[in-house]
Amino acid sequence: MNLQEITFPIKADLAQVEAVLRAKMASTVPFVTDVSEYVMQNGGKRLRPVLTLFCAKLSGVQSHDAIPCAAAMEFFHTATLMHDDVIDNAEVRRGKPSTNARWGNQVAVLVGDYFYCRASDLLVGTGNMKVIECVTHAMRATTEGEILEITKSNDLTTSEEDYLKVIINKTAVLISAACEIGGLLGNISEEFTMALRRYGQNLGTAFQLADDVLDYTSELGEFGKVEGTDLKEGKLTLPLIVALRHAGQAEKQLIRNALIANRLDRGQLKEVLSMIEGFGGIEYTLNLAKTYIKHAQEALTPFKPSIEKEALLSLTEYVITRRN
Amino acid sequence: MNLQEITFPIKADLAQVEAVLRAKMASTVPFVTDVSEYVMQNGGKRLRPVLTLFCAKLSGVQSHDAIPCAAAMEFFHTATLMHDDVIDNAEVRRGKPSTNARWGNQVAVLVGDYFYCRASDLLVGTGNMKVIECVTHAMRATTEGEILEITKSNDLTTSEEDYLKVIINKTAVLISAACEIGGLLGNISEEFTMALRRYGQNLGTAFQLADDVLDYTSELGEFGKVEGTDLKEGKLTLPLIVALRHAGQAEKQLIRNALIANRLDRGQLKEVLSMIEGFGGIEYTLNLAKTYIKHAQEALTPFKPSIEKEALLSLTEYVITRRN
Repeated sequence: MNLQEITFPIKADLAQVEAVLRAKMASTVPFVTDVSEYVMQNGGKRLRPVLTLFCAKLSGVQSHDAIPCAAAMEFFHTATLMHDDVIDNAEVRRGKPSTNARWGNQVAVLVGDYFYCRASDLLVGTGNMKVIECVTHAMRATTEGEILEITKSNDLTTSEEDYLKVIINKTAVLISAACEIGGLLGNISEEFTMALRRYGQNLGTAFQLADDVLDYTSELGEFGKVEGTDLKEGKLTLPLIVALRHAGQAEKQLIRNALIANRLDRGQLKEVLSMIEGFGGIEYTLNLAKTYIKHAQEALTPFKPSIEKEALLSLTEYVITRRN
Repeated sequence: MNLQEITFPIKADLAQVEAVLRAKMASTVPFVTDVSEYVMQNGGKRLRPVLTLFCAKLSGVQSHDAIPCAAAMEFFHTATLMHDDVIDNAEVRRGKPSTNARWGNQVAVLVGDYFYCRASDLLVGTGNMKVIECVTHAMRATTEGEILEITKSNDLTTSEEDYLKVIINKTAVLISAACEIGGLLGNISEEFTMALRRYGQNLGTAFQLADDVLDYTSELGEFGKVEGTDLKEGKLTLPLIVALRHAGQAEKQLIRNALIANRLDRGQLKEVLSMIEGFGGIEYTLNLAKTYIKHAQEALTPFKPSIEKEALLSLTEYVITRRN
């Protein structure tokens, strides 16, 4: 199933999330509103709002009460993307020029900050201290994960364990929070809330593993990203880490050069790609993603069958089979 | 009185704020802790914690309850400074290389984000929804003010009104929140809380006016800032706006060139400085600061005499007589 099919049961709620996003983007500074609209109308998947809405429904929460939180999660996520683009000097985001490429770092940093503030506004508006606490902690983990990632850049000794610590923090914790707050809003018991958190954590980890594979296997246009972006940015993701395990001295040297080069030529990129495939880096990473997906599915065991549970299960398949 | 003399009654509390800042800087990522320490040990004035502590005491709050909030305000403020430095490409902050100059934009953006998260953690820890709400709104205003400022950069038609809107948002609202939360923690009645808010708003506006004067009148080393920084960054502050009101075509052209030049030579800077002084830009700005100071003092009328009230009144004098 594609994302549109999976999210069919919450189509109306998602439209309301969009309405909240639009309403909250409006600033007394017109330029902020304009940039915000550019950034938000970028064809994002809205995965985090989808998770919050389904997990809230699963926990007996009325849509009306979950929508502001769902919107907050998207604002937070977009804020991290904008700051990421500054960090990576990214030129393209989802097939369009990135905010920093278009208006410079200053605008990307500040509009990112503005999105953080808007997300906080929405969360504070719920008056639910547990929700606020959960997301605040997740935001901190996200930031720490991103910093850990840059301290590891170009580091050929990065281990699978280091890598997992980075992706769990920078991606999985916020996705996990998007799920957990559904349960917190419903005030369901600890056992169920923890199940949603575990589901999200495993789903989020698989999501990032799949993302890191797509970075090597997808083409520009299809994914809206230049292929091999991580390599160009000096990021050692699992496919490359696996290749490095098996690489000889000459091959390591080639990877090192590719990681540190200011401009990567097409030939170098292709060489690294075929090395990764040859050493089974793609396959290994996808298999690990499947293991996490299995854990995510198992985490939902305490919940009885329902449309929402079915959708959450479908999402686990979606994150590792998606093409973008 | 200097700041050390004014803050003598809360010396022990301020030491505890420092301890909280140090404790909360610690991250599971050692690099984050190191950069955070570099940034925080920069001889900042800790004006916002000072205000929170005095206003809390004035509202009958035990120091113990105000310290986490005081620390949160400093974290928020420092986060905005770090992002400002990315925005302005600042090379020096308080006499030391700025974070972005030392480790690059990526570290400055992310450690700034980390400080936001730490501040949020501390605020959420109070469990006081009114405090959280007040500071969240203030953070949004700060960000909007900063964005408004960059949209006005190099704009010779910037009016005094535009300028005041920028500085009230980017500086005064957060200083005002630092004061107001003292009252909110004490749960004092609306009239008194509003008085603290008004005090902070006027004090903060005067503070920024004085800062913008110092940018033209202080010397490197003394202020830890290259003189004329605002001009170099294309920021039209009130001293320059006043000069522009009286400037002829040739003088306007000179100012325009200075604002847009990639490198400002010493001669150009001196010419603009003497123009500003000649047209009374410094005097006008300082007089306006004095008016705001008067409003700040009047705002405290509802409170009976006390050590804390005396200190808050002394702070009003301090912000416009300080040399850095």
